[in-house]
Amino acid sequence: MNSFGRIFRLSIFGESHGALVGVTIDGCPAGIDLQEADLLPDLERRKAGATGTTPRQEADQPEIATGLFNNKTTGAPITILFRNTNTRSADYDAIRNTPRPGHADFVLDKKFHGYNDYRGGGHSSGRLTLALVAAGVVAKKVLQGIEINAHLAEAGGNTDIEAAIQNAVDTQDSIGGIISCHVKGLPIALGEPFFDSVESAISHIIFSIPAIKGIEFGSGFSAARMKGSEHNDAIIDAEGHTRTNYAGGINGGITNGNELYFRIAVKPTSSTPQQQQTWNNASQQVEAFTVKGRHDLCIALRVPVVAEAATAIALVDLLLINKAY
Amino acid sequence: MNSFGRIFRLSIFGESHGALVGVTIDGCPAGIDLQEADLLPDLERRKAGATGTTPRQEADQPEIATGLFNNKTTGAPITILFRNTNTRSADYDAIRNTPRPGHADFVLDKKFHGYNDYRGGGHSSGRLTLALVAAGVVAKKVLQGIEINAHLAEAGGNTDIEAAIQNAVDTQDSIGGIISCHVKGLPIALGEPFFDSVESAISHIIFSIPAIKGIEFGSGFSAARMKGSEHNDAIIDAEGHTRTNYAGGINGGITNGNELYFRIAVKPTSSTPQQQQTWNNASQQVEAFTVKGRHDLCIALRVPVVAEAATAIALVDLLLINKAY
Amino acid sequence: MNSFGRIFRLSIFGESHGALVGVTIDGCPAGIDLQEADLLPDLERRKAGATGTTPRQEADQPEIATGLFNNKTTGAPITILFRNTNTRSADYDAIRNTPRPGHADFVLDKKFHGYNDYRGGGHSSGRLTLALVAAGVVAKKVLQGIEINAHLAEAGGNTDIEAAIQNAVDTQDSIGGIISCHVKGLPIALGEPFFDSVESAISHIIFSIPAIKGIEFGSGFSAARMKGSEHNDAIIDAEGHTRTNYAGGINGGITNGNELYFRIAVKPTSSTPQQQQTWNNASQQVEAFTVKGRHDLCIALRVPVVAEAATAIALVDLLLINKAY
Amino acid sequence: MNSFGRIFRLSIFGESHGALVGVTIDGCPAGIDLQEADLLPDLERRKAGATGTTPRQEADQPEIATGLFNNKTTGAPITILFRNTNTRSADYDAIRNTPRPGHADFVLDKKFHGYNDYRGGGHSSGRLTLALVAAGVVAKKVLQGIEINAHLAEAGGNTDIEAAIQNAVDTQDSIGGIISCHVKGLPIALGEPFFDSVESAISHIIFSIPAIKGIEFGSGFSAARMKGSEHNDAIIDAEGHTRTNYAGGINGGITNGNELYFRIAVKPTSSTPQQQQTWNNASQQVEAFTVKGRHDLCIALRVPVVAEAATAIALVDLLLINKAY
Repeated sequence: MNSFGRIFRLSIFGESHGALVGVTIDGCPAGIDLQEADLLPDLERRKAGATGTTPRQEADQPEIATGLFNNKTTGAPITILFRNTNTRSADYDAIRNTPRPGHADFVLDKKFHGYNDYRGGGHSSGRLTLALVAAGVVAKKVLQGIEINAHLAEAGGNTDIEAAIQNAVDTQDSIGGIISCHVKGLPIALGEPFFDSVESAISHIIFSIPAIKGIEFGSGFSAARMKGSEHNDAIIDAEGHTRTNYAGGINGGITNGNELYFRIAVKPTSSTPQQQQTWNNASQQVEAFTVKGRHDLCIALRVPVVAEAATAIALVDLLLINKAY
Repeated sequence: MNSFGRIFRLSIFGESHGALVGVTIDGCPAGIDLQEADLLPDLERRKAGATGTTPRQEADQPEIATGLFNNKTTGAPITILFRNTNTRSADYDAIRNTPRPGHADFVLDKKFHGYNDYRGGGHSSGRLTLALVAAGVVAKKVLQGIEINAHLAEAGGNTDIEAAIQNAVDTQDSIGGIISCHVKGLPIALGEPFFDSVESAISHIIFSIPAIKGIEFGSGFSAARMKGSEHNDAIIDAEGHTRTNYAGGINGGITNGNELYFRIAVKPTSSTPQQQQTWNNASQQVEAFTVKGRHDLCIALRVPVVAEAATAIALVDLLLINKAY
Repeated sequence: MNSFGRIFRLSIFGESHGALVGVTIDGCPAGIDLQEADLLPDLERRKAGATGTTPRQEADQPEIATGLFNNKTTGAPITILFRNTNTRSADYDAIRNTPRPGHADFVLDKKFHGYNDYRGGGHSSGRLTLALVAAGVVAKKVLQGIEINAHLAEAGGNTDIEAAIQNAVDTQDSIGGIISCHVKGLPIALGEPFFDSVESAISHIIFSIPAIKGIEFGSGFSAARMKGSEHNDAIIDAEGHTRTNYAGGINGGITNGNELYFRIAVKPTSSTPQQQQTWNNASQQVEAFTVKGRHDLCIALRVPVVAEAATAIALVDLLLINKAY
Repeated sequence: MNSFGRIFRLSIFGESHGALVGVTIDGCPAGIDLQEADLLPDLERRKAGATGTTPRQEADQPEIATGLFNNKTTGAPITILFRNTNTRSADYDAIRNTPRPGHADFVLDKKFHGYNDYRGGGHSSGRLTLALVAAGVVAKKVLQGIEINAHLAEAGGNTDIEAAIQNAVDTQDSIGGIISCHVKGLPIALGEPFFDSVESAISHIIFSIPAIKGIEFGSGFSAARMKGSEHNDAIIDAEGHTRTNYAGGINGGITNGNELYFRIAVKPTSSTPQQQQTWNNASQQVEAFTVKGRHDLCIALRVPVVAEAATAIALVDLLLINKAY
C-alpha cells in the first residue's frame, strides 16, 4: 500500500540500508520541464548536516531514470532513484533483541513475521522521505503559480529555533517541533465531497511522514474554544475572499480561494542519545538501552520541505481531478 | 470520490433535503448477524433533540435494503437507506444570494457550476453522517472483541459539558469542542507502511466528518514540546506493552497492541443564531445576515458516535488487509 | 469489489429476490439533464417478454433517489433504485441441495461460507444488469456526440435471429449468440498506457456481465491468421483515419479516432428447460435435474443494451481522465 | 494508470530506449524465497533470438533493488530494474513524420501532445513486458501449488508452429497466433462478484500486453453456437468437479476448482518487413513506407511466458483478497 493518489499517483520503494530508495510518479502531465538539477535545491533543504541533524551525510544524487525525454516529462511514469552510498549496517544488529522504544522495530517484526529488513528502519526509515521530496519537486512544477511554504515555527516549545537546537545539543536529548504550512494561489473548488476533502487528502499523506503526531487546519484545536460568531469568516467579495481565515482556506472540504493554512506536530526523534529502557528478548527482561547509529536531535528541522512535498502531491491530484469536470 | 476503503469499502450518497441518504458497504464478511434494530442505539446517540442540538427531529428509520439474508450478511454489498421525512426547503432559498459564512455554500456553487442542491447543504450536509454511523455499526460488528469509545472531553473550552451547553444556549452562540477516542483490544500489526499508516487511514475518514479542524494521536501537539527521553514509551514485555503511551498505540504507522488513542477538534457550528456579515450577490456588497433553519448550538455533542463509526470503518479495512498476509 | 472506474465510479448493489437492486454513480459531471423517463427506453430494450426471454415481467420502475436537483445532475452521487416486485422465492429452495450446472450456485455457497442469498442467483443474478443499464444511460448522456450501438449479430450460430429463436423455442433448449458493438465519434487519445488500455477497461466491465465467454476487438481472433502486411491499417490523413480498421479503432490501447469495434460471445443460458445432471448433496450422488423458475431461452437477446451501457461507462471514465491532462 | 491490482499491486515504468525498464511489486507477502537467478528461466523464455524473433539481443539482467533481505521478500515493495544496453535510437527518427501503421505512434503523439518518447515505442514498447515477466515470477512463487502453463497453440493459422515460422521467414511477412493458457490447482472461490470477476481481472491485464486482439474463456466464442444442454458442465462430486469444462473453470466470475482455461489472439507484429503505406506529415500525402529497426516476425512466440505472468499476477491479487474473508 505504498502508493498514493487517484490520478497523480506515487509509488514509493526502497530501504535505508539496501541498494536504493526511489519513487515512481504516474499520471504526471506531459511537457513539464524537468531535469535532475531541478531536484537539488529541495533535496538540499532535506539534507542532514546542520546542527541538530544526523552526521550521516549522503550524496543524495537523484537519477531520473524514466519518463523524461529532451528534458521534458513524456506522460509516462517518472521513476527517480537514489542509490544508498553511506550505510553502516553493523550498527543495527542489536535491534533484533532489543526493539528500540518509540521506533517501529517491534511492530515491523510482528507484521512481517520476522522477515523485514531491520537495518536502519528498513523501508520504514525517514530516508524514504527522499522519494517524497523528489516527487514533491515534480508536483510543485505542475502547480505553476501556486506557492507552498512550510517552516519550523517552534522547536522544543521555543520559537527561537537556534536557541532550542543549542539546548538539545547541550542536553543531548532529542526535541520535537511544530511546522506551519501555507499555500497561496490555489484556485477555488479543489477537493472532493466527503471522503476526499482537502483535509483528508493532505492529512493522509502528511501522516505518512515519520514522527508526525498531529495536524490542524486553520483555527485547528483553538476552534474548540471559540464561538461561532467569532469563528465564521465573513465573505467580503464576489471572489469569496474572507475577512478572517479561521477556516484555513477550506470550507466543506473544498478550497475557498483564500490561503490554505495548516500546522503539524513533530515528535522528538525516538533515537535520543539518552539512556532508556526496553524489553530484551534474549534476557527476557526490561534493560537499560542506548540507541546506536547516527541520528537527528531535531528531526523537525528537516520536515518542512517534506511537508511541502506531501502537500504539493496531494494538491496536484485534486487539481487534475478537478480539471476533469 | 464518495467512497472509502480498499477492501471494506463505503460508498455514500444522498442529500439533506432530497429523498434519502444512504450508504453501500462492499466487502463486508459474510455471516455477520445484522438487523435494522442493531443500528438504532448508535443512531439514537447521533440524534438531535438534546439541549444544544437542532430541534429538527427525524425518525432516522434505517432500511437495510440489500446484502442481508436470514438476518446475516451475505458477502454481497449492504445498502442502508434513510428516507428524509422532515424537510423545510423554503428556509434555504436565500442561500443562493447570500452564501453563509463558514459554510460550503460558496465553494459548492463554484465547484458544481451552480448545479449543486443547496438546500440544507445538500450532499455536504451533516445529515450524511447518518450513513457513516450506520456503516460504523456494521464495522463494529466485524471488529468483535475490539472496543471503540469516543466522548466529548470539552465543549467551549469547558470540561463541564452541561455548563458549557447552558452557556451557549444563554448567549445564543454556537460552541466547539474536543472529542477523545480510545480503542481497546486491537491486535498488533494493523496499518500499512508509508501511505496507509493507521494515522493516515483514520485522519482521512475523520476529516470527512463536517466541522473537524484537527486531529492528534497520543501525545499529539504536546509532543512538540517534549524531549525524546520523556516521549519514548519503554517496552516492558514480550507482547510489546509499554509503560507509558505517548505513541497512542501506533509506531511507524502500525498498531503496537497498546490502546489506540486520539483527539479531534470540532469547530463551533457555522450556523450560529448571532447576526453575521456576508457578501450579497444581488446587492453586490457585504451585508448583515442571520442564518435561518434549525441548527445545532453544539454540534460536537453529536460527533462522538460519528467518530467511533469512522474509526471502526478505517480499522476494519486495515484488519481485513492484514488478514490477507 | 462491486465498484468500477477511477473517477466516474459505479457501485452496484442488490439481489434478485431481495428488496431492490440499484447503483450509485459517483463522479458524474454536474449539469447533465436527467430524469427517470430518460432511463425507460434502454430499460425497455433490456426487458424480458419477447419470444425467447423469461416470462418474469418486472415493472422495472427506476427511482433516481439522489444526485438530482431540478432535473439536472448536481455533481453528487446519483443513486438509482429498482424495487423488486415480482419474485417467487419458493422456486429456489432446491438449489441448496442440487447446485445448478453452469450456474454459480456451487461456488457462491463456498465463497460466502453458505451465507449467500441463493434465491434467483441473489446478488449474482442477471437482474443486476438493470443497474448497469441505468448507469449506462447516464454515461451515454455524458458522452454527448458519441454513438454506441450494439446488436445481436448471430444466435445459435444463425444470423437469421428470428429463425434461431424459433428453433430454440421449438427444441426447448437455450442458445447463445454473438453481440457486435460499434462506437462512433470517439475522440483520439482515450485510454491509458499499459494497464488501463481501452481494451482492458472495456473487457473488464464486459466480463462482469453474466454469460459472457469471450471478447475480441477489431480483427480479433481472425488476426491470428493474418499477415502483418494485410492487418496493418494504412493511415490516410492527418487526422489518423485509416483505410481499413482491423485495429478496431485502438492502437497501443488508445483510441485512434476511427470507429471502435468489438464483438462478444454469449453462452447459452444455463437454465435450459432440458433435463440435466448434477450432484445432489442430500443423496450424495449425481442425479437427473430440471431447472425450475422462469428463464430466458436466449439471454443474448437482452445483452446488447447491457453491452452498450458497459461500454459507455468504461469510456466516460477514460474520457474524464483524459480531460484532466 | 500504470498500476494493476488491489492489494498485490504492480507499478510499471521505463522506456524501450531510455535508461531502463522496471516494476515495483507492492503487497507481496513477506518470507518468499527470491533471488535474481530465479527470474532468469522465465526471462529466457521471453527473450528474442529464436527464428522469427527480433535479432535485438538484450542481456536482460535483472536487479532486484528493493524489498529483499537475506534472499527473502520482506513485505516492503520489490523493485526490479532492467538497464537497457543495446539501443539504436537513430533508427526511429523517421517516426515523427511517418507514423507507422498498426503502431501507436500516431495516438501517442496526440495523447501526450508531442512529448512522448517515440524511440522504439517508448513506454508503450513490448520491452515493458520484461517487467511483467519479472513480476510474474514473484507472483508464481506466491501461488505455490498452482501451475500455470501457456503455449503457442497455432501461428499464422497453422498448428505446426515450426512450419508457420519458416513460412513467415520465407515470405518476410509477420504472422499472428493463438496462445492457450491452463491453470491447475486453483482453489474454489477466487474472484469477486460483478466487476472483479476472474475473467475481468485476467482480461484486464492480458489486454495490457501489446498485440492482443481477443480473449475467450472455456468454450469461448464457440459457446455462441452451443445449446444449453450441451454447454452446462454436470457437477459430479461434492468438490464441484465437472464432467466437461466448457466453463473454463469459472462460474459467475468465481473459480470452481476445475482447470482454468483461456485462449488469447495475438495479431501479426505491425513491424512487418513488407512495404506499406502511411500518411507523411512532411509531404502531407500517403506514401510508401518500410519499417526500420529490428523486429519480430512472430511476436506470438514470445507471448506465452508473458501471458503466464499476467495470469499469475491477476490470480495472486484475487487469492490474497479471498484470504481476507
